[in-house]
Amino acid sequence: MNSQASAPPSDPACLSAADAARAIHAGTLTAVSLMEACLARIAAREPEVRAWSYLDPASALDQAREADRRQAAGQPLGPLHGLPIGVKDVFDTVDMPSEYGSALYRGRRPQVDAAAVARLRRAGAIIIGKTTTSEFGMYHPSPTRNPRDLARSPGVSSAGSAAAVVDHMVPLALGTQHTASTTLPASFCGAFAFKPSLGFADMAGSNILVPRLAHLGLMARSVADLALFAGAFDSTLADLDSIERLPAPRVALVRGPGWASVAPDAAAALDRLLARLAVPVAEPPLPTEFERALEVTLGLLDAHLAFRFGALPTEDFERLCPPLRAGVDSGRAMSAPRYLELDALADRLTMLAAGLFAEHDLLVTLSTPGEATLLAEGPGSGVMSMPWSLCGLPTVSLPLLHGVGGLPIGLQLIGPQGGDRALLQAAAWLAAQVNPTTSHEI
Amino acid sequence: MNSQASAPPSDPACLSAADAARAIHAGTLTAVSLMEACLARIAAREPEVRAWSYLDPASALDQAREADRRQAAGQPLGPLHGLPIGVKDVFDTVDMPSEYGSALYRGRRPQVDAAAVARLRRAGAIIIGKTTTSEFGMYHPSPTRNPRDLARSPGVSSAGSAAAVVDHMVPLALGTQHTASTTLPASFCGAFAFKPSLGFADMAGSNILVPRLAHLGLMARSVADLALFAGAFDSTLADLDSIERLPAPRVALVRGPGWASVAPDAAAALDRLLARLAVPVAEPPLPTEFERALEVTLGLLDAHLAFRFGALPTEDFERLCPPLRAGVDSGRAMSAPRYLELDALADRLTMLAAGLFAEHDLLVTLSTPGEATLLAEGPGSGVMSMPWSLCGLPTVSLPLLHGVGGLPIGLQLIGPQGGDRALLQAAAWLAAQVNPTTSHEI
Repeated sequence: MNSQASAPPSDPACLSAADAARAIHAGTLTAVSLMEACLARIAAREPEVRAWSYLDPASALDQAREADRRQAAGQPLGPLHGLPIGVKDVFDTVDMPSEYGSALYRGRRPQVDAAAVARLRRAGAIIIGKTTTSEFGMYHPSPTRNPRDLARSPGVSSAGSAAAVVDHMVPLALGTQHTASTTLPASFCGAFAFKPSLGFADMAGSNILVPRLAHLGLMARSVADLALFAGAFDSTLADLDSIERLPAPRVALVRGPGWASVAPDAAAALDRLLARLAVPVAEPPLPTEFERALEVTLGLLDAHLAFRFGALPTEDFERLCPPLRAGVDSGRAMSAPRYLELDALADRLTMLAAGLFAEHDLLVTLSTPGEATLLAEGPGSGVMSMPWSLCGLPTVSLPLLHGVGGLPIGLQLIGPQGGDRALLQAAAWLAAQVNPTTSHEI
Repeated sequence: MNSQASAPPSDPACLSAADAARAIHAGTLTAVSLMEACLARIAAREPEVRAWSYLDPASALDQAREADRRQAAGQPLGPLHGLPIGVKDVFDTVDMPSEYGSALYRGRRPQVDAAAVARLRRAGAIIIGKTTTSEFGMYHPSPTRNPRDLARSPGVSSAGSAAAVVDHMVPLALGTQHTASTTLPASFCGAFAFKPSLGFADMAGSNILVPRLAHLGLMARSVADLALFAGAFDSTLADLDSIERLPAPRVALVRGPGWASVAPDAAAALDRLLARLAVPVAEPPLPTEFERALEVTLGLLDAHLAFRFGALPTEDFERLCPPLRAGVDSGRAMSAPRYLELDALADRLTMLAAGLFAEHDLLVTLSTPGEATLLAEGPGSGVMSMPWSLCGLPTVSLPLLHGVGGLPIGLQLIGPQGGDRALLQAAAWLAAQVNPTTSHEI
């Protein structure tokens, strides 16, 4: 089932981001050797996985050489110095095409880097290419295949970032999430993912469809690497405390409005995992308003799709995929007060969601209704993450569950708005609970 | 022309808020004597001016007695200790009806104070009653008359607050502004007014029609009193620096998209005032997008009116005034993407407005197109303040101009978002430029 080619253990491409960064800072690994290892891995696997929409190996190596030169010259080094990073092609990059997965943006070269890209470069990261995205981060899948099983979908829309990280092409990759675009591919591919609170990062220069849903998404192969990655945006997140020093979080299970579509094997896997935790798991009732969370999310999305794409010339509009056009049509038919009703409901859900954390530190649920779908079945459903994206809450997806097909399913952890550090800390605690003897890495 | 009854100079009701606060703190004036003076002034003038929708003199006096007791007991005193304050009846008050100027809310008694009201009480202020507002702060005027000329309109919608302050009924009064509701009545009545930046104060518990337009409004009789009043919300504003110690602001005149409706006498008065300033006044071109500022403001408003009132039962809906119902109908007919287009234009105007402050510290224009209208002509036009409300910029209205009818016209000062303190400082500088030998008070 698992077609992932295993890389030799001494391969620098298999190092965690944290270990690679430490080794580079210590001078036991050069940025060039790490880059060469990652490029070799990509060369071997990309024909099958198709994680990249653009890659410039020569420029990546040049930048790695320059990173080594700066280090040799004693210049100050950022926390991500010399790390190869993939960036989902919904972020603008001055030195690469930025096409948003759309034929309408073919060959587009922006004048400035997206704010998040600029952050990563300042932290010393080397952007080696653009990872694939579904069209405008929405419905039409990119050609990427699931590295765990090439017959399966990697999910949408940050498919290339999830696949590249899981397949050891890069230690870290940047994604986004409006509804499920980080959590879904992380769950299907088995990546560790962090979708920070709304407002965590400046999203300027990215494909913002709905401002109140426009989140960053980080992909890595361990919780510690997610923390290092997040530290480029907020340095207080870079180093987590030792798990032993912290009280166990008060954990609550929330099934959520998408639970009806959950597969029995996924539900059973979640039950088994929760039963193994050293703490009791509460199951508080969700306020009934959450039953409308999916309707609200999709309604807001359709209205903004109509605003964004409704005035396109006909010949351009007809190049959009059918479900995107259907969303535009639905949004066009929506009245302004209906939109404001949905927006007010989103405000109310956000307020109610905050109340869930009065007695719990951490909410847990599935990241997706089940394991990766077959390619022919479509890219899976985002219903499990939609409500929490709608409320702007930080979430982590941990590849700690497995379906009957042997493929990973994400365990989704949800924290309160702004509680990003505590959430990462709880994720480290939970990963250690489940796999106490491993390094909790892929 | 001026029907305002003059109060005797030794009347505590004529003290500035700052002088009254100082006298109370120093023990040379009691809260009770100040309250008695204000209540006497109200008793004398209210039958003609009609500034109050609710007043409870007995409770006001009780609270003043309690304030004096607390002071005698050596308890800590807030900066507004013992000052009588009027609150526009769009703010919830637990101890008074809160009717939003609407028959639909007749007798409504909220469970909690609005956040701004709670702030004022914590600062020691005594809320003596609710000042009139037009229906839901919109079109249908309250019965208030202009204290400068009872045949004239006091403007809308914070009419009661402007009239009460100008007529020496209270030294300070609270208002709000979505489009012009503080600036317009301040201009017509001759009050000093401060509309802080969007987000300056928590507007919870007030009549928020459009969140991005929902501003606080402060009415007083001098710039120093506005600063003292604003200090209850942000203590860094309470004390302004001495004018002599500050560099003169770089001043620019902006006519704005409402200029076509400006009366010749008002334009001439503005020209004369600007010519007297000791600094050059630039006149930079406004970006052409500002031509759409009024359309955008009114469109956003109509959409939100439709959301707020569109689902009322027919018998309630028909009790709304005709222009409010027309706004609801217009909003109902608006599509969601059209709303989002207007909202995006508002974002763009906000960004462009920020750019105006690269080379200027202070923008100036008229607060209204002219002096107060006759009651039969309606409550005047808000076109001069709309663009700056739309952009969330702090504004001050100074009663430094006069029309051919001898009535005041406000000089509107506009600062950058968040530059509230510098704007008040510039207002003090400008008032001193125009009236160097007075205390710059009404």
